[in-house]
Amino acid sequence: MATVRVFVTLKPSLLDSAGRTVAGALQKLGYSELQDARIGKMIELQVEPYSEERVKEMCDQLLANPVIEDYRIEKV
Amino acid sequence: MATVRVFVTLKPSLLDSAGRTVAGALQKLGYSELQDARIGKMIELQVEPYSEERVKEMCDQLLANPVIEDYRIEKV
Repeated sequence: MATVRVFVTLKPSLLDSAGRTVAGALQKLGYSELQDARIGKMIELQVEPYSEERVKEMCDQLLANPVIEDYRIEKV
Repeated sequence: MATVRVFVTLKPSLLDSAGRTVAGALQKLGYSELQDARIGKMIELQVEPYSEERVKEMCDQLLANPVIEDYRIEKV
């Protein structure tokens, strides 16, 4: 069985308000070295058999919103 | 400026209901090779200066809930 990780992130040009909130909270806690934070999703899939093409299809159809998100596939 | 990725995942013993839902939806879409899906968070931090110890502290204080989640830190 193959383990595949899909990383879904907001496109860099878009404001990540959750990330901005986390960055602000950490700075208030005293972590002044923090410049920015962005939050994405990591989806770990167990597939058998593995086909990169099919995992890409899953991302396009359901896992990511191609209008606002990018994704990256990594086979473990 | 250092880029650090923090991966926050639910502890393996816990039921990931969002992941279960995603897995069910993909199977219904015809991806019968999918056995399981689990969903976690990826938090990308920009820090300057970088200290792994400090990033660990951020995770313990704010980014992860140590009761139900594990985290992993990766410097890019």
